[in-house]
Amino acid sequence: MITNPVLEVMMNRKSIRAYTEEMPSDEVIEAVVRAGMQAPFAFQMGSLLLSRKQEEHPFGAPLMFAILVDSYRHEAMMAKRGWSMATNDLSLLFFGIQDAAYMAQNMVIAAESLGMGSCFLGWAPYEAEEFAAATNLPKRVFPLVHLVMGYPAEDPPTRPRYPLSYTLYEDAYPRVEDDVVAAAMRQMDEGYLAQDYYKKEKIIIPLEVDREETFTYETYSWTEHISRKTGQWLKTPRDILDPLNACGFKILQDEQEE
Amino acid sequence: MITNPVLEVMMNRKSIRAYTEEMPSDEVIEAVVRAGMQAPFAFQMGSLLLSRKQEEHPFGAPLMFAILVDSYRHEAMMAKRGWSMATNDLSLLFFGIQDAAYMAQNMVIAAESLGMGSCFLGWAPYEAEEFAAATNLPKRVFPLVHLVMGYPAEDPPTRPRYPLSYTLYEDAYPRVEDDVVAAAMRQMDEGYLAQDYYKKEKIIIPLEVDREETFTYETYSWTEHISRKTGQWLKTPRDILDPLNACGFKILQDEQEE
Repeated sequence: MITNPVLEVMMNRKSIRAYTEEMPSDEVIEAVVRAGMQAPFAFQMGSLLLSRKQEEHPFGAPLMFAILVDSYRHEAMMAKRGWSMATNDLSLLFFGIQDAAYMAQNMVIAAESLGMGSCFLGWAPYEAEEFAAATNLPKRVFPLVHLVMGYPAEDPPTRPRYPLSYTLYEDAYPRVEDDVVAAAMRQMDEGYLAQDYYKKEKIIIPLEVDREETFTYETYSWTEHISRKTGQWLKTPRDILDPLNACGFKILQDEQEE
Repeated sequence: MITNPVLEVMMNRKSIRAYTEEMPSDEVIEAVVRAGMQAPFAFQMGSLLLSRKQEEHPFGAPLMFAILVDSYRHEAMMAKRGWSMATNDLSLLFFGIQDAAYMAQNMVIAAESLGMGSCFLGWAPYEAEEFAAATNLPKRVFPLVHLVMGYPAEDPPTRPRYPLSYTLYEDAYPRVEDDVVAAAMRQMDEGYLAQDYYKKEKIIIPLEVDREETFTYETYSWTEHISRKTGQWLKTPRDILDPLNACGFKILQDEQEE
């Protein structure tokens, strides 16, 4: 495969869940954030709340960024131009999540290039109300995801991905045959099992449905793991509509503020 | 500022809107897509539909990727494990948009590192029903954004960004004073005006409200431009709920399929 120093950094990235105590310098943090800010945007709606309170962070990571979808700044700017927000909040969030995510992914790659590692943590939307209160977020700012970062104290292998042929299609979406799905699942499951990933992480998601546990660390792998997440968690739209509403985003125009 | 070859590529990126006729090789396309696939994910919900029909693409770009939020593959996999989707569609989309966006941003940086340029085009969600019909998308796949790519036939400067101090906060979101907003706006507006950006692109968004046009290419800049977008466009949630619904995503559980 074609390669170069940039592609190497991207192909070598994996989530890091153990960090040294070394605190990245202000200059390193600035380089990461400026690389993030230079990502493409629709409305420049991504902003960042950094914590350096290492003792409070997962994995002892020295840095934890909250990646924010920030319409507050945007609307402050519109107001100074004599405009008010007309775009519906769901469309606005689609743009804002992309702005924030493009920025965050540049930060991931920037960190990697500076010898650091990172890991996204996905619970932020579901603790949005508490987080907003604790960090003084104004209405119209929503915490999308956390990104912990620092110098790695582990060097795990890169993790498996679906086959290229299962991700890149041309001109039209193909009929996806049963054996193609099975082969993609096998590549993921055998890949994670070969790395003892769930065994080392000591994770088997408990069954919350009336279903007998038949998996062990010898058989539990990626497809079962993510099936248990999307097969059991966040069942009602209120799970996300309520935190959005608490942060001032109303997906339906006639929805009441809480 | 700290720099290295990876940071340089990220800091130098700008959207490219003119392309040479040269078609990137299969190997170059594969390198870009594999770099994309190696991005972090929640559920690996990003997939890609590539078109090489250069004559049909904006700016004559040789490549156009539709970046897809793809729950179809995910649910096919779950079904083979005996699970069905329980997570509400809005939460699922929050994860899926992030998966797709992290992948897409790696592709942007990969392209840049290979001497190519790219540009996101944001209309995909609003033409989702027609696009799905034309490309045979199964239900549960949503086109998030288009990304055109190829070898650049222009070399514009990098575009301005908000000040770092207006994007990176620590510990708590600050009170944003009026003069801070004004300074951020000035940095964006003067930056784009200095590049004659809107004049060269020949874009002044027409006023759709009862308001007199007072801007010329000498004064029209970024803050007025994006205020006109979010101040006038996509006013009702139906603008996005309808295409989502057409692609099989129901944000409210009691919503009827179309």
